[in-house]
Amino acid sequence: MTGIPEYVLDLDQRDPLAAKRREFVLPKNTIYLDGNSLGALPRNVVARLDAVASRQWGEDLIQSWNKHDWIDLPKRVGEKIAPIIGAASEQVICCDSISVNLFKLLCSGLELNPARSVVLSQKDNFPTDLYIAEGVQNLLGESRCQLEVCAADQLESRLDEDIAVLLLTQVNFRTGELHDIQALTNAAHEKGIVVIWDLAHSAGVLPLELDAWGVDFAVGCGYKYLNGGPGAPAFVYVARKHQEKLRQPLSGWMGHKQPFEFSPQYQPAQGVERFLSSTPSILALAALDAALDVYQDVDIKQVRAKSIAMAELFISLVSDKLSAGSLTLVASMPSAQRGSQLSYSHPHAYAMAQALIELGVIVDFRRPDILRFGFTPLYTSFVEVWRAAQILVEAVESRLFLDSRFQQQHKVT
Amino acid sequence: MTGIPEYVLDLDQRDPLAAKRREFVLPKNTIYLDGNSLGALPRNVVARLDAVASRQWGEDLIQSWNKHDWIDLPKRVGEKIAPIIGAASEQVICCDSISVNLFKLLCSGLELNPARSVVLSQKDNFPTDLYIAEGVQNLLGESRCQLEVCAADQLESRLDEDIAVLLLTQVNFRTGELHDIQALTNAAHEKGIVVIWDLAHSAGVLPLELDAWGVDFAVGCGYKYLNGGPGAPAFVYVARKHQEKLRQPLSGWMGHKQPFEFSPQYQPAQGVERFLSSTPSILALAALDAALDVYQDVDIKQVRAKSIAMAELFISLVSDKLSAGSLTLVASMPSAQRGSQLSYSHPHAYAMAQALIELGVIVDFRRPDILRFGFTPLYTSFVEVWRAAQILVEAVESRLFLDSRFQQQHKVT
Repeated sequence: MTGIPEYVLDLDQRDPLAAKRREFVLPKNTIYLDGNSLGALPRNVVARLDAVASRQWGEDLIQSWNKHDWIDLPKRVGEKIAPIIGAASEQVICCDSISVNLFKLLCSGLELNPARSVVLSQKDNFPTDLYIAEGVQNLLGESRCQLEVCAADQLESRLDEDIAVLLLTQVNFRTGELHDIQALTNAAHEKGIVVIWDLAHSAGVLPLELDAWGVDFAVGCGYKYLNGGPGAPAFVYVARKHQEKLRQPLSGWMGHKQPFEFSPQYQPAQGVERFLSSTPSILALAALDAALDVYQDVDIKQVRAKSIAMAELFISLVSDKLSAGSLTLVASMPSAQRGSQLSYSHPHAYAMAQALIELGVIVDFRRPDILRFGFTPLYTSFVEVWRAAQILVEAVESRLFLDSRFQQQHKVT
Repeated sequence: MTGIPEYVLDLDQRDPLAAKRREFVLPKNTIYLDGNSLGALPRNVVARLDAVASRQWGEDLIQSWNKHDWIDLPKRVGEKIAPIIGAASEQVICCDSISVNLFKLLCSGLELNPARSVVLSQKDNFPTDLYIAEGVQNLLGESRCQLEVCAADQLESRLDEDIAVLLLTQVNFRTGELHDIQALTNAAHEKGIVVIWDLAHSAGVLPLELDAWGVDFAVGCGYKYLNGGPGAPAFVYVARKHQEKLRQPLSGWMGHKQPFEFSPQYQPAQGVERFLSSTPSILALAALDAALDVYQDVDIKQVRAKSIAMAELFISLVSDKLSAGSLTLVASMPSAQRGSQLSYSHPHAYAMAQALIELGVIVDFRRPDILRFGFTPLYTSFVEVWRAAQILVEAVESRLFLDSRFQQQHKVT
């Protein structure tokens, strides 16, 4: 490893977010550029989990639902997420998973547009979004729900009055390419289409203004940039104007107006709380709740500026050193048009990812041939980005990835 | 408090499960007869949560999905639950909540019986079961799903060939009355009806033989007798014979045959894994996984015998001391026909529950007028049952519950 250039050290020195790194547990000798399948562990989560398990569950037992206000955690966590996505109060609730929440929203979107049946999505949307739409189609029949997919650049021209719901993910999970939420939402609304945005790779790292952009519905992930832990609960955004019209189908008791009346008839709760289904995992919610405290004093615009600067540093370091050919930047538009990741294709991408992990740089592999580098401005430094680029260049040039030990297939890639 | 009678001390001395109590964290000066809305904290859960958070998430980060086999936790936890409910391997999986899982199973049950539309349930079933059936009805329309409810004693005579699905909870949450799963399943099958059993208050405390009884589907709760923590993940049982025929509607990526292929088309996984939807909370699953270790050497028949003995001790102590009238045992059949709880009605049941809690006996109130005492044989002693009965008798006789401080309404009751 050669010496770190001054300008890289300087980038860290001038970084307004540099101190945030200390709020995370980060393993030594590892550069964590996972992009982003699991955010790092915020330090305060461990103490919070212990308090919830040992003191609340262990000592106060069932009374904790009142005493420690477990019952309002889905709402409280939703209210912490709201400013991060540009939502006023009482429109975000934290519960279930993206998949389950998409099911609720797809059925709700179809309910708002009963004379139409097409759900339009992107053919390379994150698969679970398409699978859930398939599930709704299979259950309701094509007369009520018909999934249609097209390429990203065909979406806008396909918006027409047969489409009930436009279901899109802002950041493409493979390439990082970004949709313009405001422009697509406006174009869809002009045709009377309801829009659902999946913010899995957006929330916490891209400036979002859901209210100002007039978004109808959104879902997002607790375990990526929000650092809520593996499989953390997801969130749902439902614009206030739609809330009272809807009765989502997973109408479990936690979404009831008065769950502890134990009435035999369902009556939806006021507002976004009707999107709750069932007793939430308090351990999982508490971990996310603690993780969100890290965001209390964070300006997402600074996060975005740092993320772009990191991507540009990485691109410049890698493309300066590598002759064109084997490693190709997949989405080579300006960094402002990508999420907080860079994707490179490589014919041996899987083995390359394994080799990089062995060398201490954690990246993702995404089929068929993508190496995904994520930049998490709250805990990654410019020096790390610089080092990771050096290691990548060395790994490509040394052809280390050809070693058979990097071919071993894992269950999760 | 008078001296503890010899025969009560003797019951504890002869209790083959007495040593299990040491595996739980239990607060001092509290008799925990919550019945059962939240099982107590198993000691090993705290260490497991810390290991999963600090060591796995904190140090191994995204690699933990492989390195610590997070990806198979839903299956592994399901396999630990299987023997507790009398199920052979590969029929139980742990995920989501009872409500969400009931939605999957109701849609599956209707799919197995496409020429029928009635879902029959009990009018005093636990409300979320009815709400979810209402949700399916509302979504699919009455031509495909029509919820009908009747009293418990009308169920058997109502079983007829217009009924697609019989949806029942084994233990009535208010009264503790027990259904005979085998008899009702047989009677339903004779009419071609698919049966879904909700085992919320059964799993871990009642001997269950789902395979031997020919049950089609079941759901159950991780946070009651299985002690998995507040809002722990639920489980789904799908009899092997049905698995390959079904394609449940919440078809998220974790139920895909090869989720990490990221194929745009959904293909259900083999077997019960197709009932998974989405990325599970590893914190929540790991807590339940650790909690289930407590059951490794437990004979559920001993649990049941102790539970019945405790109920009979409590009944005898309370009815010996109280003149009839204000406190009435709700389901006065033999204890073998009730779950692991006793319910007493009282005109001031809410205030009485608050008074008992202040006196150190944690019980549940259930509208409109029920005091629910739960018996958890793994961590409750006969001496505690005896003490709780003394305290109840004193509270009734002293009319302590009339004090205005016990009227205060809590969010969760």
